[in-house]
Amino acid sequence: MASLDTLIQDLVIANRILAKEDVVDAYGHVSVRHPDNPRRFFISRSLAPELIEKQDIVELDLEGQPVREEKRSLYLERFIHAAIYEQRPEVNAVVHAHAEDILPFGIAKAMPLKPVIHSGSFIGMNVPVWDIADKFGDTNVLVTDMEQGRDLAKCLGQNSVALMSAHGFASAARTLIEVVRMSVFLPRNARALTRAKMLGGEIRYLSKGEIDARNAGYSPYSTETWRAWEYWAKRAGCGHMLTRPDGGQVHK
Amino acid sequence: MASLDTLIQDLVIANRILAKEDVVDAYGHVSVRHPDNPRRFFISRSLAPELIEKQDIVELDLEGQPVREEKRSLYLERFIHAAIYEQRPEVNAVVHAHAEDILPFGIAKAMPLKPVIHSGSFIGMNVPVWDIADKFGDTNVLVTDMEQGRDLAKCLGQNSVALMSAHGFASAARTLIEVVRMSVFLPRNARALTRAKMLGGEIRYLSKGEIDARNAGYSPYSTETWRAWEYWAKRAGCGHMLTRPDGGQVHK
Amino acid sequence: MASLDTLIQDLVIANRILAKEDVVDAYGHVSVRHPDNPRRFFISRSLAPELIEKQDIVELDLEGQPVREEKRSLYLERFIHAAIYEQRPEVNAVVHAHAEDILPFGIAKAMPLKPVIHSGSFIGMNVPVWDIADKFGDTNVLVTDMEQGRDLAKCLGQNSVALMSAHGFASAARTLIEVVRMSVFLPRNARALTRAKMLGGEIRYLSKGEIDARNAGYSPYSTETWRAWEYWAKRAGCGHMLTRPDGGQVHK
Amino acid sequence: MASLDTLIQDLVIANRILAKEDVVDAYGHVSVRHPDNPRRFFISRSLAPELIEKQDIVELDLEGQPVREEKRSLYLERFIHAAIYEQRPEVNAVVHAHAEDILPFGIAKAMPLKPVIHSGSFIGMNVPVWDIADKFGDTNVLVTDMEQGRDLAKCLGQNSVALMSAHGFASAARTLIEVVRMSVFLPRNARALTRAKMLGGEIRYLSKGEIDARNAGYSPYSTETWRAWEYWAKRAGCGHMLTRPDGGQVHK
Repeated sequence: MASLDTLIQDLVIANRILAKEDVVDAYGHVSVRHPDNPRRFFISRSLAPELIEKQDIVELDLEGQPVREEKRSLYLERFIHAAIYEQRPEVNAVVHAHAEDILPFGIAKAMPLKPVIHSGSFIGMNVPVWDIADKFGDTNVLVTDMEQGRDLAKCLGQNSVALMSAHGFASAARTLIEVVRMSVFLPRNARALTRAKMLGGEIRYLSKGEIDARNAGYSPYSTETWRAWEYWAKRAGCGHMLTRPDGGQVHK
Repeated sequence: MASLDTLIQDLVIANRILAKEDVVDAYGHVSVRHPDNPRRFFISRSLAPELIEKQDIVELDLEGQPVREEKRSLYLERFIHAAIYEQRPEVNAVVHAHAEDILPFGIAKAMPLKPVIHSGSFIGMNVPVWDIADKFGDTNVLVTDMEQGRDLAKCLGQNSVALMSAHGFASAARTLIEVVRMSVFLPRNARALTRAKMLGGEIRYLSKGEIDARNAGYSPYSTETWRAWEYWAKRAGCGHMLTRPDGGQVHK
Repeated sequence: MASLDTLIQDLVIANRILAKEDVVDAYGHVSVRHPDNPRRFFISRSLAPELIEKQDIVELDLEGQPVREEKRSLYLERFIHAAIYEQRPEVNAVVHAHAEDILPFGIAKAMPLKPVIHSGSFIGMNVPVWDIADKFGDTNVLVTDMEQGRDLAKCLGQNSVALMSAHGFASAARTLIEVVRMSVFLPRNARALTRAKMLGGEIRYLSKGEIDARNAGYSPYSTETWRAWEYWAKRAGCGHMLTRPDGGQVHK
Repeated sequence: MASLDTLIQDLVIANRILAKEDVVDAYGHVSVRHPDNPRRFFISRSLAPELIEKQDIVELDLEGQPVREEKRSLYLERFIHAAIYEQRPEVNAVVHAHAEDILPFGIAKAMPLKPVIHSGSFIGMNVPVWDIADKFGDTNVLVTDMEQGRDLAKCLGQNSVALMSAHGFASAARTLIEVVRMSVFLPRNARALTRAKMLGGEIRYLSKGEIDARNAGYSPYSTETWRAWEYWAKRAGCGHMLTRPDGGQVHK
């Protein structure tokens, strides 16, 4: 198992990758569950992901509250993370972001977002759309308490991604590497589908069998997954921070 | 209250942010009202926003004229700013720009620009479209005197943004931070709406209640607003110029 | 009048600007007529515009042939320039490029490219589309001799820009600054029109009166024109090469 | 003939160019056939193309197996290359990538990808679309053995490019320079066609005569081809690695 120190360093890398790959900007966040205490998770204090360093990471409980005295401001929407960890014991990493190219699928009601490219398979057959207004009426469109977070988590269900109407998305996975990978390819899948729609005609979606076959072959430190993580980390200026918790070799 | 020196430094930062975030290019400008004399405002001499430094800032009156002898050239369209400050006493900052992705909404007549993403809420329920030709016929499409500026300001009314047909937009807010934030998210909202239109079906606009709820929660130096200002300033190479006029701490 | 040395330096700047602003890439070129000999013009040897330096500039006659012995390779399509200078005595600068966003207007036959934004006004009311196949049948789609160049120049007529089907565009203006400005805003105008088409409804084109008014106010070293040239040159890393042939001051 | 050392250096350049020009990212690869042994080819070990150096290049046989003991991981999809070299003796270089803007043409079934711009001519009149599901049913959508590779190669036939449904493309050419050039212009041609479709009306495709004329004039070290290779290599930070196997001069 990764040491806490390594895990937190990976969380910093994850933040920087998501910023560099235009998944997050000033807003959006990524978290990872505490490996030794499933009722806690790590996430940054309120700060733009590109600027995050190790000392910005805080430890929260599953109510979204800090486990130690904390004077620094926290993300308003940390309840998204808490509620998903609460509901999904097998999930160890969560992203919430507003990546621009997925937004239209939470605005236009005609076309569901589904995988159309192999790298988009991890979003799964079904990407539910959660609209905060359905249950909570007129809000500031942010998830600012556990009740809202739980309602989103309920909509997410056993899926990997939920779109949030007029807002963004939440994604959940077994590992940090996986949730980052899925969150980077989600907007790409959205762009490919949007343009395919413009070209017209029938759409060739991934089948359930294809999605299952890809999922079956996934491993967080496989050569193929690591290749992307290494590449993205280096692009984000974090090459020197790369470690392999599985003991594999890092080529620097 | 911010010292004048700090305010002018923030105006430099605002110019650089708008350039870095592709809201302005060689053209476009941002101004701020004089905190002690509501009949004056600060704006750069005629210069591309990315290149502006403190010594480029000039002080103009509400007729758009310099209050001190000024040999350097001024922006032809400074009357946009003067006229909006004249009409809207509560407005303290104005942007005029030609951000590419809002232009189609001033060219195509079928689809109004309205908020469809939470970060676009600040543009408000109604974004009027002003066409200089309606009153002034064939011009060079620029706002080059007070009469034209006042006509635009009248069209803007109590709204936050007016589109300018075949030209760009003008936005107005209570503070510099707010007008920059709105001007950065305006093109993003436009892109999201354009693509949602391509996907087809009913559009999920923000409701008036949602817009009001977001507006009610807004504060220029809140953690969330500052997070974006800090991030954008650092991206624009202005991290060293950051100050908080409210006395809050700046993490450098 | 600008010294030859200054003019050639401006031609280097023009090349670098067009590369930085994505008007040209490995291909595309810009030329300027010899100020003392209207039957000659300057253009680079065959080289990607971003890489061009003063020693790469060659002097050609109006048949597209070098006026001095030249062992280096020349652009295959230099006849575009020669033919336009031959036909249009008032033209002193020409660009030929393949800027991506204008290409659809030379491929789809349903929608003419016309000015829809104020900065696009200089392309004029009419942008003819030249198809090399109309007269020359199956070619390599390049303009490789004077006969083809003259046919293109004839299609261009008294307009400022001609689209070249399945290929790119040629633009012509009184000065280098003007032809660069027009060539930078041409793709932007194309993008705005493309997206307006997607939004649907009636298109608000610039009127002839607006285009004329803008053209009447144009001057190659006006504050407004210089502002863009200065900005683009600095972005392209050429700030140190800026000079003003009209004797105006350069702020460095 | 190029020395092996020079050829491998060119393969490194090709990888870096494809990364810089957004044809590949963490995934995708380019290979070159061994000049002295047509049953072998060179390709990188499993690594993101932007990070590849000479020592990462391995030598494989036409079954996709390493000819020397190799402990490092290999690309899962190396069989694409092996199968194309096996079937096409005149082909000496292959690219497989997921360039985003070609993906819609492998997803939407209404519109074939054909050349609409002169620089896209090298993709040829016919770009077949291969769907792995047609013969292999539900897979992970990757080409992971020779049988799948041969089926793709069969679909490619004598064409230059095959699209791979829900996945990407494979391109094949006589030389490295040619396959890189084609792979860079393929997405551009796709974008131009996509946007032309949005503008509406009849599409002006390149004719067979035009494609043949362009192909007839092609030479891997012609001034025009070299101009792009030199430019792309310098953009990718590989200017110092440029050599001309034909003995021509490199301007550095």
